[in-house]
Amino acid sequence: MKRFAFFVVAAIVSLVALSIPATGHADAAPAPYVTEMPSGYRDWQWVSSAHEAGNLNSLGSVLGNEIAIKAYREGKWPFPDGAIIVALHYKNVPSDENNKVFGQAQSFVPGAPTNIQFMVKDSVKYAATGGWGFGHFQDGKPANADFMKPCFPCHQKAKVTDLVFTRYAP
Amino acid sequence: MKRFAFFVVAAIVSLVALSIPATGHADAAPAPYVTEMPSGYRDWQWVSSAHEAGNLNSLGSVLGNEIAIKAYREGKWPFPDGAIIVALHYKNVPSDENNKVFGQAQSFVPGAPTNIQFMVKDSVKYAATGGWGFGHFQDGKPANADFMKPCFPCHQKAKVTDLVFTRYAP
Repeated sequence: MKRFAFFVVAAIVSLVALSIPATGHADAAPAPYVTEMPSGYRDWQWVSSAHEAGNLNSLGSVLGNEIAIKAYREGKWPFPDGAIIVALHYKNVPSDENNKVFGQAQSFVPGAPTNIQFMVKDSVKYAATGGWGFGHFQDGKPANADFMKPCFPCHQKAKVTDLVFTRYAP
Repeated sequence: MKRFAFFVVAAIVSLVALSIPATGHADAAPAPYVTEMPSGYRDWQWVSSAHEAGNLNSLGSVLGNEIAIKAYREGKWPFPDGAIIVALHYKNVPSDENNKVFGQAQSFVPGAPTNIQFMVKDSVKYAATGGWGFGHFQDGKPANADFMKPCFPCHQKAKVTDLVFTRYAP
């Protein structure tokens, strides 16, 4: 009887241990993020562009799908579910052609594409990351879960604008 | 008879003088250009963006209507009639918000709008300026004819790409 009781207790302990959520552990299940590029993004309307100097040396442009653009133009946060914002990034390079015309070195244009990033609003699926699914793609391939970890904490600094840094250019 | 002959000759000379086209004169009729902003331009698709340093200190974005975008994507010049390209220009300003997040001054975004420029392809109407009608608007108002004079000669330096400097960003 004692051996049997032991096995029963062991089984119960194992079941309990397996059912404890793994949050906080180093091998905790990562928050869901965007692993497939939404289709048609290159056709979306223009939100704004930016030049990042420093280490990035990047020229970027942000486009938004219909839902995102509508929300931007209404000036209302949070963005509704279904809104998708894409940031197309390129190396910031001088344009020799343009500089010849201007007569001095002053013109910088998009060079080689570097990465494409997405923010997809789904307040249920991406509840763990403020309602936004973050995505990062290089040569069409998604980044891994470790790479995606810093996205949400950094974007939380833009809490006032629903985690979105980019403003709409009129 | 001599006096009569004189008057006839004088009349003929006057008629000939009046019929000579006034090209080359300081008061020659200016080439037609775009004086009304095409509607719906802010909804057009994104072509590319650029940062102009130097005196301009400008961040600009180029959008194209359906005909222009199609031509760009096919990579064929010249652009067909009906193509319209718009360049939205803004002051290039640092973003304090973004710089706080990045931890250093590196982020430049569109500030106040400066001007909106158009190129409208109509090889008949704008034959005098390479088939393109040029437009320049500030606060919604078109520039005058004198201001528009340098557009065409400068754009002729981009003859290889049908007078269009901006390349399509993939």
